[in-house]
Amino acid sequence: MRVPARWGTPGRVFVRSLRDGEGHYDEARLLPGEEHDGGWACWEAHVTAVNPTLRYRFLFELPGTSGPDLRWLNAVGTSRRDTADRDDFRIDCRPAPAPWARDAVIYQVFPDRYARSSAAAPLDTLPDWAVGCTWDDPVQPRGELTPRQVYGGDLDGITARLDHIQALGATVLYLTPFFPARSNHRYDASTFDEVDPLLGGNAALVRLVEAAHARGIAVLGDLTVNHTGDAHDWFRKACADPTCEEAGFYYFSEDGTEYASWFGVPSLPKLDWSSAELRRRFVEGPESVVATWLLPPYNLDGWRIDVANMTGRHGPVDLNRDVAALVRATMDAVRPGLMLLAESTGDATGDLSGRTWDGGMTYSNFTRPLWQWLAREDQATAGINFFGTPAPGVPRIDGADLVATHIALSSGFSWRVRSQNMTALNTHDTARAATVMVDGGAALGLALAFLLPGLPTLFAGDEFGLRGTNGEDSRTPMPWDRPERRPADTRALIAGLAALRRASPSLRDGAVRWLAATPDVVVFIREHAEECLLVAAARSDYDGVRVPLDLLPVPWADARPIDLGLQGASAEESRDALVLSGRGPGVQAWRLPGIPDPARNGWRGR
Amino acid sequence: MRVPARWGTPGRVFVRSLRDGEGHYDEARLLPGEEHDGGWACWEAHVTAVNPTLRYRFLFELPGTSGPDLRWLNAVGTSRRDTADRDDFRIDCRPAPAPWARDAVIYQVFPDRYARSSAAAPLDTLPDWAVGCTWDDPVQPRGELTPRQVYGGDLDGITARLDHIQALGATVLYLTPFFPARSNHRYDASTFDEVDPLLGGNAALVRLVEAAHARGIAVLGDLTVNHTGDAHDWFRKACADPTCEEAGFYYFSEDGTEYASWFGVPSLPKLDWSSAELRRRFVEGPESVVATWLLPPYNLDGWRIDVANMTGRHGPVDLNRDVAALVRATMDAVRPGLMLLAESTGDATGDLSGRTWDGGMTYSNFTRPLWQWLAREDQATAGINFFGTPAPGVPRIDGADLVATHIALSSGFSWRVRSQNMTALNTHDTARAATVMVDGGAALGLALAFLLPGLPTLFAGDEFGLRGTNGEDSRTPMPWDRPERRPADTRALIAGLAALRRASPSLRDGAVRWLAATPDVVVFIREHAEECLLVAAARSDYDGVRVPLDLLPVPWADARPIDLGLQGASAEESRDALVLSGRGPGVQAWRLPGIPDPARNGWRGR
Repeated sequence: MRVPARWGTPGRVFVRSLRDGEGHYDEARLLPGEEHDGGWACWEAHVTAVNPTLRYRFLFELPGTSGPDLRWLNAVGTSRRDTADRDDFRIDCRPAPAPWARDAVIYQVFPDRYARSSAAAPLDTLPDWAVGCTWDDPVQPRGELTPRQVYGGDLDGITARLDHIQALGATVLYLTPFFPARSNHRYDASTFDEVDPLLGGNAALVRLVEAAHARGIAVLGDLTVNHTGDAHDWFRKACADPTCEEAGFYYFSEDGTEYASWFGVPSLPKLDWSSAELRRRFVEGPESVVATWLLPPYNLDGWRIDVANMTGRHGPVDLNRDVAALVRATMDAVRPGLMLLAESTGDATGDLSGRTWDGGMTYSNFTRPLWQWLAREDQATAGINFFGTPAPGVPRIDGADLVATHIALSSGFSWRVRSQNMTALNTHDTARAATVMVDGGAALGLALAFLLPGLPTLFAGDEFGLRGTNGEDSRTPMPWDRPERRPADTRALIAGLAALRRASPSLRDGAVRWLAATPDVVVFIREHAEECLLVAAARSDYDGVRVPLDLLPVPWADARPIDLGLQGASAEESRDALVLSGRGPGVQAWRLPGIPDPARNGWRGR
Repeated sequence: MRVPARWGTPGRVFVRSLRDGEGHYDEARLLPGEEHDGGWACWEAHVTAVNPTLRYRFLFELPGTSGPDLRWLNAVGTSRRDTADRDDFRIDCRPAPAPWARDAVIYQVFPDRYARSSAAAPLDTLPDWAVGCTWDDPVQPRGELTPRQVYGGDLDGITARLDHIQALGATVLYLTPFFPARSNHRYDASTFDEVDPLLGGNAALVRLVEAAHARGIAVLGDLTVNHTGDAHDWFRKACADPTCEEAGFYYFSEDGTEYASWFGVPSLPKLDWSSAELRRRFVEGPESVVATWLLPPYNLDGWRIDVANMTGRHGPVDLNRDVAALVRATMDAVRPGLMLLAESTGDATGDLSGRTWDGGMTYSNFTRPLWQWLAREDQATAGINFFGTPAPGVPRIDGADLVATHIALSSGFSWRVRSQNMTALNTHDTARAATVMVDGGAALGLALAFLLPGLPTLFAGDEFGLRGTNGEDSRTPMPWDRPERRPADTRALIAGLAALRRASPSLRDGAVRWLAATPDVVVFIREHAEECLLVAAARSDYDGVRVPLDLLPVPWADARPIDLGLQGASAEESRDALVLSGRGPGVQAWRLPGIPDPARNGWRGR
C-alpha cells in the first residue's frame, strides 16, 4: 500500500483477510527509502491465501490528536468507519491468463452481416425461415422480419477480411454463434454438431481459424448453454417422446405441454442442468460440445457464453456455478490458457469469482456509465432502450458519477477478472454509441475502452462510425464498398490506440487511480513499475481542472504528451497542482516514468 | 414505497428484481388519497419472487428540468447513479418466524457462572482439569488458569433464578454449552450425548426447560458444529485408529500426526463435513445430535451455532451452506418454528441468506459501531480488544458514522434476518459495555438494543452493570448475594424496555428510518400501521437538533413522550422542523399515531 505524504505517516498498517470465513490480521512493514519527491510511503505485508478467493482490506493508523486515527482501505476507497466485507479487495487463486488473453484486443463479428465470399450460399436457396436481403437493404430494427433477414455473410468472407481486422490491431476475433439455427443471430441453435452450411460449414471454420492463427489472431466462439433452439434435435426428440433421455434436458411441465424458455420466448427452450446426460453431451470430456470445437481441426481459443447469468438458474434451482465449473474443467483439460468469457448484462460481480469465467461481457462498470456521461442532451436519446431499464432514453450523469459508478460496479471484481472483462462501447445487443453519444463522444469512448482496465472490445462497424438505435439495428452489413455509408472513419484512431496499448505496460497491466472529476472532465492514472500514463477525458471544452501534485506517483517534470489523434489538452504545473485545459469531446494522455520499486522485488503497481 | 413531498411527485415508479439472475421491471401504481398533511405519496407494485431470495430495488422518475430525473432506492439509500446489486433489498422466501421467535428478548447465561444450586456437585470432586473456585473468587481474565476456573454454577441454579429472568422481561433463555468438556466454557465438548454431570446431568436440563416453558420462556442450546474437543470420543477413536470411521470426521494430515483445528488450538479439532457418517450422527434425522435435544424429554426450542462462519470451511473446501441446510432441515422436521442462530463475529451478511439460519449472533451492525460511538475518551479503552482488530482500544466515531456503519452492515441482510439478529450490548466473548462506554453509555446502549430492529440480547450481569475487560473477564459469577459488587442496577430499566417492546408493534415489527445524526445525537423512527415511535439517543447534552417535519410520517401534534427511565429530551415544533434538546447519555422516545393505510389492504410500514 502506498500512502501519499498528505495523509501523514501511518503508525501501523495491517492487512485484514478472511481465513475460512474469519478475520485475520497481518502487519505490514514500511519499506525503506526510495520515496520520490512527493513523499509516498510504501508498506508491504505478506498474506496467505487460505481459500480459493482471498478477500482483504487494509487497516492503517494515521497520527491523530488523541491517539491513532484509524482508516480502512478497500475496493471502494478509504473509510474512517467499518465497512462491509462485500467491498473488500479480492484475489482469485487461479493461474494467470495467458499473455495473449491478458493483452487481447477483441473484435466482434456478427457473421451474417460481416462479409460475403464468392463461395457463399446463393440467397435464393435459403431455408424456409430466412428472407434473403442484398447487402444494401436496410436492416429492420424490430418486427417479424428482424430475425429472418439474411444478408448471407459467411466465414470465408471474414477470412478474406483478416487484413482489415489485423490492421486495426485486434488480436482476438469473437464470432457470434455459427451453429445452424432458424434466425440470423443463431442464438437458437438447432444443433451444436456442425457449422451452419450457410456460413460455409465446418471447413470454412477451419480455414478461418487457421488463417487467423497464422496472423497471431485468436478466435472465440459463442455458446448458448442456457438454452437451445426449439428446432434442436434434443428438443424435438424431447417433445416427441417424453420418456426419452432428451426430455430430461429441458424443464417440461408435468403434462408435457409447457416448458421453460429464455424470457418466455418459446423458440428458446431452457436447459435443465440437473441432467447428467446433458452434462455429458454438452460439457464433459473431449467428445462434448464444449471440447469439440476447441480441439483440432477447429482449434477455437475459447468461448463467450451467452446469458451466463441465467444459465442453470430456474426458480428454486441454482446450478450456475456447477455449470461454469464443468465448462472450465473441460476447457482446462483441452488446453491451458483458453479464454472463457461470460455474458452478464447486469451487475456481474456476484457471478464472476474468477475461478471459472475469466471475465465478463458486462456493461455495468464501463459501457453503461460511459453512455450516460456522453449521452446526447435534450432527450435526443428518447426511444433508446437503456439496457432494459424503463428509463426514457439514456439518463445523463456527470463526471463524478461516471467515476463513482465505475468504481462501485468494478469493486466487486477481483483485479484479474476486471482486467479480463470486455470493455465495449457497444455490441450486437445494444444501440450504437455513435447514436447515443454527443458528436465526438464515440471516439472518446473508444479511447477509454483502450485506456481503462479491461479488454478493449470493438463491434465490427465501430471503425466506420456506424449507427443503430438498438441491437438489431446495429447489425448493419459492413459498408465495405460504400464509403458514403460510413459516418466516420476511426480506423487510424483504433489502430493507434491498439499500438499504444501493445507498447504500454501500464495500459496492459497497470493499476488505475482516479485523480479528478468535474461534470465534464475525468482524470485518471495507470501506474506501473515501467511507466505511468495520465489520462484526461472531457466531454466538452475545459479550463483549470486541478490535479494535486502530491497525488502523482512520480514528478510531473518528466511527463511527455502522447498524440492520440483526438482533441487534446495542455497541462501546466502550478505550485501544488497540475492545471489542465483542453478541448472536448477529447482525450489527452501523458507518459510518465514508472514508479520506483521500493522493495526491489518486482513490485509493479496496485 | 413512500415518497415525501419534498422530493416532488414521481412520474413513474418501478421495482427492479432479479429473475434467475436477470433484471425484471414491474411498474408501481400511485395509491389514491389518504396522504397526511406532510404530503407523502405511496406507490405499490406487485413483484413475483421467482427464486428463494428476491433481490429488488426501486427506480423512480422525479420531475427534472430537462426530462425525468432518475433515482434508485436500495438498501443503502437513494442514488442518482447506478448501484451494485449487492446493495439491493432482499426478501427470503421462507415461512415467517414463529411469534415467540419474532418477539424474543434473549437472556444469555454462561452456566458455570450463573447460580449454584444446593444439589450442585461439590467443588472437591471436580475432574482433573478443573480448579474449583468459590463464588467470590476473582475471575482470571487471561492465562493458563482462565479456562480451568470452575465456580460450579449448575442448571438447577438457573431454574431457581427463573423468577429473576422472567422479571426482566426475557422470553428466551440462551445457554452456552452444557455438554461435558475439559473447560469451564465447554466449547470443547467431549461428547454431545449427555448434559455435563457438573451441571446436573440430563435430568437437570429437563427440569430447567420444563420450568422455563411453564413461564413461557423458550430455551436455546449452543452447539459447536465447527469442531469438537480433543477429548471427544470421536476424536479419541480417530487418533487411536486411522482406519476407523471417526478418522474421517476430522482433517488429519496424511501421516496422521497433524490435524486441522479452530485457530490452530489443538484442543479444538475441526470437523470435516464431507463425512457422510458425521452428517448422519451429528445432523441428519431424529437420532442425530441436532434433533435429540430438541425432542422430548429435553425439548429445547432451538440452537445457537458456534463459529457458524467457519463451519465446513477449510481451504479449498466450502461446505458451509450444506451444513446449514442440513441442520435447518432436521430442525424443521422436528418441529416447525424452532430458532436457529448463527454466530458470525464479522460481517455476517454473506452467510445469512435467511434460508437456513434465522439470524446471527453478529456484532458488526449494532454492537461494534455502538461501542465506537459511546467509547470512553482519551484512550481509556486502550487495552480493550476491539473484536479482534489490532486497533489500540475502541476507536471513537461520531453519530453520523454510527448510522452509516449500521446501515452499511445491515443492508446485506433481508429484513427478516435483520429482525432475527441478536442485538447485544456485549456477550461472553467480549468486554462488558460498562467498561468500554462512557458512564451512562451502557444504559443508553441497552435501550437501543430494544429500540432498534433485532432481538434484544442481554448477557447475564448486564442488569447489575458488571464490568469486564475481555470475554473471559466478563464471565463474572453473578453477584446474587453481593449488592456491593453490582456497579449499577438496570433491572427496572430492562424490565421497562421489555414491557415497552412487548406492547409496541413498531418495535417488534416496524420499519426503521434515520432522521438526523450529529456527532453526539442520532434520531430514528420506527414505523408501523398501528403506531410509530420516534427515538432520540445522545451521548452528551444537546440542544437544537433539527428533524425536518416533512420527514415525519404523521403530524407531530399527536406525539406523546414515553418515560424510559433514562435522561430525556424535549421536542419543540418550529415552522419546518422538530427541534430537540436533551441530556446525555440519554434516550427519549415519543409515541406517534400509526401510518394511515393508503391501500386499505393491510400495509404495515416498510
